[in-house]
Amino acid sequence: MKEIGIGVIGTGFMGKAHSIAYSASASVFGTGLRPRLEMVCDLSPERAQVRAADLGFSRYSSDWREVVNDPAVKLISVCTPNDTHAEISIAALSAGKHVWCEKPMSTTLADSTAMRDMAISSSAKTIIGYNYTKNPAVTHARRLIEEGHIGRVSGFFCRYDVDNEADGNRPWSWRMSRDKSGTGANGDVLSHVISVGHYLTGSTIAKVVGDIAIIHQQRADADNPDSQKTVDNDDMVSALVTFANGVKGHIGASRVTWGRKCGLRWEIHGTEGTILYDQERLNELKLFTKDSDPATDGFRTILTGPHHPPYSAFLPNGGHSLGYMDVKICELHELLTAIEKDKSVWPNFEDGLAIENVMDAVDRSALSGKWIEVGN
Amino acid sequence: MKEIGIGVIGTGFMGKAHSIAYSASASVFGTGLRPRLEMVCDLSPERAQVRAADLGFSRYSSDWREVVNDPAVKLISVCTPNDTHAEISIAALSAGKHVWCEKPMSTTLADSTAMRDMAISSSAKTIIGYNYTKNPAVTHARRLIEEGHIGRVSGFFCRYDVDNEADGNRPWSWRMSRDKSGTGANGDVLSHVISVGHYLTGSTIAKVVGDIAIIHQQRADADNPDSQKTVDNDDMVSALVTFANGVKGHIGASRVTWGRKCGLRWEIHGTEGTILYDQERLNELKLFTKDSDPATDGFRTILTGPHHPPYSAFLPNGGHSLGYMDVKICELHELLTAIEKDKSVWPNFEDGLAIENVMDAVDRSALSGKWIEVGN
Amino acid sequence: MKEIGIGVIGTGFMGKAHSIAYSASASVFGTGLRPRLEMVCDLSPERAQVRAADLGFSRYSSDWREVVNDPAVKLISVCTPNDTHAEISIAALSAGKHVWCEKPMSTTLADSTAMRDMAISSSAKTIIGYNYTKNPAVTHARRLIEEGHIGRVSGFFCRYDVDNEADGNRPWSWRMSRDKSGTGANGDVLSHVISVGHYLTGSTIAKVVGDIAIIHQQRADADNPDSQKTVDNDDMVSALVTFANGVKGHIGASRVTWGRKCGLRWEIHGTEGTILYDQERLNELKLFTKDSDPATDGFRTILTGPHHPPYSAFLPNGGHSLGYMDVKICELHELLTAIEKDKSVWPNFEDGLAIENVMDAVDRSALSGKWIEVGN
Amino acid sequence: MKEIGIGVIGTGFMGKAHSIAYSASASVFGTGLRPRLEMVCDLSPERAQVRAADLGFSRYSSDWREVVNDPAVKLISVCTPNDTHAEISIAALSAGKHVWCEKPMSTTLADSTAMRDMAISSSAKTIIGYNYTKNPAVTHARRLIEEGHIGRVSGFFCRYDVDNEADGNRPWSWRMSRDKSGTGANGDVLSHVISVGHYLTGSTIAKVVGDIAIIHQQRADADNPDSQKTVDNDDMVSALVTFANGVKGHIGASRVTWGRKCGLRWEIHGTEGTILYDQERLNELKLFTKDSDPATDGFRTILTGPHHPPYSAFLPNGGHSLGYMDVKICELHELLTAIEKDKSVWPNFEDGLAIENVMDAVDRSALSGKWIEVGN
Repeated sequence: MKEIGIGVIGTGFMGKAHSIAYSASASVFGTGLRPRLEMVCDLSPERAQVRAADLGFSRYSSDWREVVNDPAVKLISVCTPNDTHAEISIAALSAGKHVWCEKPMSTTLADSTAMRDMAISSSAKTIIGYNYTKNPAVTHARRLIEEGHIGRVSGFFCRYDVDNEADGNRPWSWRMSRDKSGTGANGDVLSHVISVGHYLTGSTIAKVVGDIAIIHQQRADADNPDSQKTVDNDDMVSALVTFANGVKGHIGASRVTWGRKCGLRWEIHGTEGTILYDQERLNELKLFTKDSDPATDGFRTILTGPHHPPYSAFLPNGGHSLGYMDVKICELHELLTAIEKDKSVWPNFEDGLAIENVMDAVDRSALSGKWIEVGN
Repeated sequence: MKEIGIGVIGTGFMGKAHSIAYSASASVFGTGLRPRLEMVCDLSPERAQVRAADLGFSRYSSDWREVVNDPAVKLISVCTPNDTHAEISIAALSAGKHVWCEKPMSTTLADSTAMRDMAISSSAKTIIGYNYTKNPAVTHARRLIEEGHIGRVSGFFCRYDVDNEADGNRPWSWRMSRDKSGTGANGDVLSHVISVGHYLTGSTIAKVVGDIAIIHQQRADADNPDSQKTVDNDDMVSALVTFANGVKGHIGASRVTWGRKCGLRWEIHGTEGTILYDQERLNELKLFTKDSDPATDGFRTILTGPHHPPYSAFLPNGGHSLGYMDVKICELHELLTAIEKDKSVWPNFEDGLAIENVMDAVDRSALSGKWIEVGN
Repeated sequence: MKEIGIGVIGTGFMGKAHSIAYSASASVFGTGLRPRLEMVCDLSPERAQVRAADLGFSRYSSDWREVVNDPAVKLISVCTPNDTHAEISIAALSAGKHVWCEKPMSTTLADSTAMRDMAISSSAKTIIGYNYTKNPAVTHARRLIEEGHIGRVSGFFCRYDVDNEADGNRPWSWRMSRDKSGTGANGDVLSHVISVGHYLTGSTIAKVVGDIAIIHQQRADADNPDSQKTVDNDDMVSALVTFANGVKGHIGASRVTWGRKCGLRWEIHGTEGTILYDQERLNELKLFTKDSDPATDGFRTILTGPHHPPYSAFLPNGGHSLGYMDVKICELHELLTAIEKDKSVWPNFEDGLAIENVMDAVDRSALSGKWIEVGN
Repeated sequence: MKEIGIGVIGTGFMGKAHSIAYSASASVFGTGLRPRLEMVCDLSPERAQVRAADLGFSRYSSDWREVVNDPAVKLISVCTPNDTHAEISIAALSAGKHVWCEKPMSTTLADSTAMRDMAISSSAKTIIGYNYTKNPAVTHARRLIEEGHIGRVSGFFCRYDVDNEADGNRPWSWRMSRDKSGTGANGDVLSHVISVGHYLTGSTIAKVVGDIAIIHQQRADADNPDSQKTVDNDDMVSALVTFANGVKGHIGASRVTWGRKCGLRWEIHGTEGTILYDQERLNELKLFTKDSDPATDGFRTILTGPHHPPYSAFLPNGGHSLGYMDVKICELHELLTAIEKDKSVWPNFEDGLAIENVMDAVDRSALSGKWIEVGN
């Protein structure tokens, strides 16, 4: 088994998730490249040291450039705040390192485009962490679609609602400012919706008309309890879409929906069947296909199991349930396989930019009130 | 108990459903006006006679004008093909009769407007059969909203998908022609979605941007097996919407979705809670509200029961389930109560026209590619 | 269409439900015997008069013997308190009338046996109102089983839990006394479970070992707020069972389960498939059968529709939902068809006694702590 | 952070699962003892070597005694075939090592009793891998019960059905022989049911009456295709039970139920509420409690999240889903904490024996046809 040296930049939740995936990957899959945890980076040297011990890294640093330039490090995880993704990723690619960058790509289209350009000019592999496409249930849906089980795809409908900011009494944060964070629900949540649409259809959204709403327009200023600050980016966003292959549908997202915790739900319609999915029940896929006997047809609830690769790398029996972390390991495994075999992996920085372009088009359409062609 | 003479025009499924409702109404509610089944009408005298016997009418006719003008008939059910609704309803109103007209109102905005105008100039009661708003579960949702259980409404999202025409091998029919039937999924299915949106929000849709798709563009000509005919109205329709009160959302409908039988699903978001509903499980409402203990909150599945009027008129214990026919009886009961007490009932022809205006705006927007203000 | 004169004895919920079924039957089915509502009976003449008007009967009486002996009445509904079922049913059969008796048959095995004996010696039709076997979804399950879709039946598991007495603060009632009411959850609730087991397997339970529990042993005396009365019959009952055909399983019931409103849930296992059902979602059947492709198998949720007789007598499209009342109409239709065509109907008084015998065996087993053979 | 040396004996699925848990534990929890993967053991030296590399162990052996006696190893995972659990566990305890032994404890009561005795006489910690009690959702249920959210517990009902042997065409295996494997569904599957019952009620089952069934009595002999071999242990097992604290219920298990993959479902009834759980949806708990407003009560679906320890060690946001592997990490964390803080952990070998005693009593009751007191 060959090894690959790993550097993780950022030690928040995503840094931890990447690190756990690196630790478990070889145990789960028992094949291919084995990650070797070289160096972890946090702005605080103290925290970097503690996290290195917790997460099992042999070295640590408080300077991301040190990680990027370390000769033993070949694969870099970018798990820092969104507005630093571009600089770090581009430096890593320049240094010839593979990059696993969390979503969204960056906070501006210009940055994302620069990342894409650098990736194209590099022979390293890149991937954006659109994790909801890596679940074996979803991978299986894609396979069913490709194999024609639901005929020609005719519609894609997806919402992703969460309750992160549902409580109007939560104070204002930088996430609620266009200046500081760009769009709101669009960048944070709708981006996942778009990734799923691109993945399942094998096409990309080409035309949109969007709309946004700000539900809590004023929020308390945490630093100044007596005053209020204005929210100026989207609590909710919706769009009608047309894919390049002609499929139509609608998409939406909200960060203010009570009761939805990880409420990504999609359905895909075809001329011979329908598939439904709910991320809060990530081990289930619902499938309806034309059946010879209408008295016994109905949506069947498929429980993920050994017939849905790579489930069997984790568990020998169906119905025993994968979780979020397992799916992150699947994502990593795709990247490691791509590196080992010099194959492509989805979504790389080019695919990532295609998602960013849709986000941008939805936002511009919401502001202009017009259908917009998605840029390239 | 006072009686009211009934005339039913049309003996297809809806004529039957109305007749059963008239038969059962007094038994169920035991109060108010008691329907007396006077006359039923079918174009075929033979069929009219048979149906009169089956459905319990004392008289029958093959001429709807005879029903409309019969002095013993005070309330007319219009259950005929859509393109005859206007003429019959207007004649009935002219004769001073109350009218229970099935949806959609008519096949042209002009006809629907004429119906509305006649209704306004009459003292008779009118109602359009938008049945999915009459279920005690849905009535309860409206009450919860009005009482503020979910705070200020922030979003309305609804699709209604059915599989009536999902099979591309079904031959062409008049329903698939703009000339003969007007819009497709819009008129047949989306109209219900709009009725639910208006009912739950207590507002009306004021602005839309719509899109349509024809999934099976050619269908076999049933009369000429070797040739194909062109489908020129919508198999699918979607829209982003803004209500007059500022609430935003998206709506959609399809007649070609495999596996959906009565697939009307809506969710309504508020600043303090969320409500979900699925017409295929019409005795359940899912409600999430802010809760003092986040460790035990979650969507609760409310089973319809005696605490959801008028359920207890049917059954003394919760969870025993109402069906489609029972809800039709609820609809009738609202109309009879309105007649008896000279109160308003929703949706009368004016409310019905508001729904038709949205359907029209969605269709025009889909053809023009622009946001459109809904007419009045 | 031929008519049959109807007498309904008892005007509580069940008397009302039977009456509504009689009113709607011909409209729904449009064939066979047409009920003619002759006479309704209530102990109070005033109430009898009011209910006759509400329910559409031409005559009323406060003496059930008058109904039983009325020459125009040919079919009698027995909807009175349980301890009067035997006397009325036997008198009705003696007078040559068909009998639709609500469950349970009576309050003693001796009475039920006498009813059975009289039914055998009569040429009239009898049926006990075990309504949960008459739902088209359940009828379809029986058909699937008979046709071998799930292979040889290997297990039957069913509970019926309700919350009628879940609140320990509810005062004592006669239902909680062995003297006054016989068993508790056994007679009220478990009886339905047994009916379903007999119906689905086409066999009868032959051997049981049972257990009971009293959860709230003391309840407030409603007449004497300061004192308590003792509950001496079962709040909960459970049993292991073996059917005559060798199928094994377990059954149970409770009247003190919070949250269960009509909580009858069963599953039936076979050597080639499994069927699941939940009475609170009475329009759904879940079916798993061996499938050629393990990657796409799963329980399918079958929505009741036109392929599940007699659904199409009610509604032309699937998924539109029948309710409790509709199923009562199905039950009546089976009885009317049996009368018209002189065929057998299930469960007649003989089948009903088989259910009572199981209830009795479970109770005796619970008291003795031994497996018991069910009597005949 | 202190470290603890780990030895894993057995490299099948469970050996792999334990190893992954050891790798991830410190990363997830970031506190307490840090596992150091010392030595892995497989009967085949070649396989041991490969698995050491895959799973990240520094050393390997083909002799379990070497692992048990290695001075650097302080905690032993016993993941070998069931009939070797006792010998290895006892040797490990004799050597002063902590033991994490997979379920069931052993294949005979004598062996399990010897394990329990050795554990009592040792100061080392022991735990049996009854994993379905370690899920944060289930831990939360236990907490709700302890805190009185559902009042006094009144009933426990649980089945665990799987389809491992549902296909009658699968050949005979040693698992189907009493001689070679002991009981069938009882030992393999019902044992989990009992562990859940003990965990949730905080009591133990004291009295049972059981029944068993063999559904496929003859199976093909894989070695001799023309002949059949006899299955002589239970495909299905059921029991009525009474706990030491008086709670009653029923339990059951099957290895021949089509469609159930990890079909452990339980419900627990109390005098003030009800909790439901389904292992195939392991991130959901359904809770019903008395509510002030009957119009809005219903079972609430609680999604596991940060309010359900130790979920937040894995994920910051609710609804993102833990999987089987994560729950195994929770199980390990409880053991490591017990070792670090010299606290008790459940289920240790004494608790494990209590479960084995119930399995034994159910089997003896099924054979004798009598209620049986569970041994100690």
